[in-house]
Amino acid sequence: MNAEILCVGTELLHGDIVNTNAQYISKKLAEIAIDVHYQSVVGDNPDRIKKCLGVAFFRTDIVICTGGLGPTQDDITKEALAEYFNVDMVYDEKSYQHLNKMYHRFRKDFPENNMRQAYFPKGSIILDNPNGTANACIMKGETEGKAKIGILLPGPPKEMSPMVDKEVIPYLKQFSNQVVFGEKLVVVNIGESAAEEMALDLIKKQTNPTIATYASAGKVIFRITAKAESKEKCIDIIEPVKDELIRRFGRENAYITKTGNVEDRTAELLLKKNITIATAESLTGGMVASRLVNHPGISSVFKEGFVTYSNEAKINTLHVNKDTIKEYGAVSPETAKEMAYGASQAAGTEIGVSTTGIAGPDGGTPEKPVGLFYICVYYKDKYHIRKVNATGSREIIRERASTTAIDMVRSCIED
Amino acid sequence: MNAEILCVGTELLHGDIVNTNAQYISKKLAEIAIDVHYQSVVGDNPDRIKKCLGVAFFRTDIVICTGGLGPTQDDITKEALAEYFNVDMVYDEKSYQHLNKMYHRFRKDFPENNMRQAYFPKGSIILDNPNGTANACIMKGETEGKAKIGILLPGPPKEMSPMVDKEVIPYLKQFSNQVVFGEKLVVVNIGESAAEEMALDLIKKQTNPTIATYASAGKVIFRITAKAESKEKCIDIIEPVKDELIRRFGRENAYITKTGNVEDRTAELLLKKNITIATAESLTGGMVASRLVNHPGISSVFKEGFVTYSNEAKINTLHVNKDTIKEYGAVSPETAKEMAYGASQAAGTEIGVSTTGIAGPDGGTPEKPVGLFYICVYYKDKYHIRKVNATGSREIIRERASTTAIDMVRSCIED
Repeated sequence: MNAEILCVGTELLHGDIVNTNAQYISKKLAEIAIDVHYQSVVGDNPDRIKKCLGVAFFRTDIVICTGGLGPTQDDITKEALAEYFNVDMVYDEKSYQHLNKMYHRFRKDFPENNMRQAYFPKGSIILDNPNGTANACIMKGETEGKAKIGILLPGPPKEMSPMVDKEVIPYLKQFSNQVVFGEKLVVVNIGESAAEEMALDLIKKQTNPTIATYASAGKVIFRITAKAESKEKCIDIIEPVKDELIRRFGRENAYITKTGNVEDRTAELLLKKNITIATAESLTGGMVASRLVNHPGISSVFKEGFVTYSNEAKINTLHVNKDTIKEYGAVSPETAKEMAYGASQAAGTEIGVSTTGIAGPDGGTPEKPVGLFYICVYYKDKYHIRKVNATGSREIIRERASTTAIDMVRSCIED
Repeated sequence: MNAEILCVGTELLHGDIVNTNAQYISKKLAEIAIDVHYQSVVGDNPDRIKKCLGVAFFRTDIVICTGGLGPTQDDITKEALAEYFNVDMVYDEKSYQHLNKMYHRFRKDFPENNMRQAYFPKGSIILDNPNGTANACIMKGETEGKAKIGILLPGPPKEMSPMVDKEVIPYLKQFSNQVVFGEKLVVVNIGESAAEEMALDLIKKQTNPTIATYASAGKVIFRITAKAESKEKCIDIIEPVKDELIRRFGRENAYITKTGNVEDRTAELLLKKNITIATAESLTGGMVASRLVNHPGISSVFKEGFVTYSNEAKINTLHVNKDTIKEYGAVSPETAKEMAYGASQAAGTEIGVSTTGIAGPDGGTPEKPVGLFYICVYYKDKYHIRKVNATGSREIIRERASTTAIDMVRSCIED
């Protein structure tokens, strides 16, 4: 069976928010090998919602809607579904009790003109919403001899996602006898276009596994995804493609991580080898530390971080030589070295890693333009330095510098 | 005129990436008062792409596609557009030269079987792509007496977005004589559901301005958007609604910021009042510093940050009393106080702000569960402390704590 995800919400059409609901549900369906053929977004407009639902059922078997379950006249996905399957709307006592309970939490009486929220298409399975007022539903029917499933979910992600995990996916599993499993290969030190070019023949040739690439500041991710009867079989299918990609990019530039984040691999290696680390950040202002700290259990090796944004902080806290800054500037390999060393000494750690650079939008000069940064890793009496000229916004430059710093630590401690 | 955004890409349907292209274009169209009625996503499947294009032109005036401009047989959006308008595909010498140039950058010869990338629907305006191989195009035609515009853009955001800004929006402006302007009201200290309940009548009643809400860890954003002949007129329309919302939430809990980020307001106030600050972070591990540092020009007031993740770091760097940690624990109001004070003393700043808590997934106890955190702001010899029991993932708990910390600093220095 295949599916369409139909998200209802004017805020999506205004670009106020990005459609994470569609991504979340797509990912979950992909894991149980149900193909999503379309995603659609429509505003809170009854006429257009009905038309979209019709189009979706015409071209797919399973239609999953988010949003439109509220109490107002514009919230009509349930009525549209009932109309599509030609059934009545019926009262559900349990949902009424739920609404009452939820409103009491806000210390409000349940407004009786919100009663529509207690009505559902006749014959539908009603799903409890522990995190909001609107219960959801699953409706199975038939159109011209073909099974059609309509699933209506609330719009807020924190209400929708637990219901997908606990109710929708277990329900839909019965319609699929395959699994999908993917691995993420992180590629660093190679630009997005170049990395894609190097793998283009594989990307285009492969159908199982498929290879998808996406880039973010400082790295490119290759997602290799297989479909088979079991996870083990998927891994067998992925293996040779993964090996070929790593061979092309070089083992020093490409590695598998669970989430596609470089910090996973770095944190795992630090923990496995029990190597302690401290950070000294100017440009990145705490981002390197924050990304490492997001790894559970990191506290046994990550000892301390210093955000030495001002020159005084570099001098007082990290004991960077005043003359070094005067002679070479705060953004220089010399200062980066003393920062990295200073952090390792101040925190008593084996590794010190530093970042210094010009994030912009102001502060650039012809010699030191916006986007220039230096990373230094001090480890085992050696200094590993990299100079990068990055482009993009302040945020992107800082993200790229933190990715580079975290990956350089990995590279220093990898076998 | 109204529009549909049609994004082509199997990686979107797999949930590998979130559809930021649709959001970006929607936002830009909203700014020039062109209504987006639908967003759609389809995979790299020629048959389905053609059908989607037909549906889009049937129900809207302007169809903007992203993706599908590559060199392979699956990349068929240009051919589908030519077919729709019933014109031939014609060779464009300038695009051929561009392709040659781009391939040489990768030190590759232009593969002659990629020649399709130099062909465009006859009569279309061809748009240069400075950041990639695939040039884009705009095609204007007519269907049953109604003007229809098709715009084809490359899929990678860093190629697509500059072309939207420089070519597509200036072109489409001629079809709109209104502007749209919005303001973002950040609401803190009030939960998402409660905040929405407090404004539900306004949200449902208003059509100009419209009010949209969206929540993230630790805050709720109300976006108030008006449509009128001029920006000044928009501001007049927004004013009374904004005032009413601020009145309901209380001035201490609600304020306008440019981006919807709490750090904007805090950083602006720190700079305006020239109040220096240092951070002492355990739980948040540098996130508070990093968010403040993302504000350009912050270096004059943000002096230094300490990521004191280990107890030794708290004791050695911030001079937290060993006995305080022993008696009350690292996650306690007592330790939070000494951290905040210690940071202000170590960096010589007026404000010290600290975070300490349990991010999980492990490390919780019945007395101190995962999600518990303390924030302390030390300012003018006073300690401002808040205790929060947050829920969610490690990342969400840390984000919420950093939002709370940054907002508490604002609250301490706001008039």
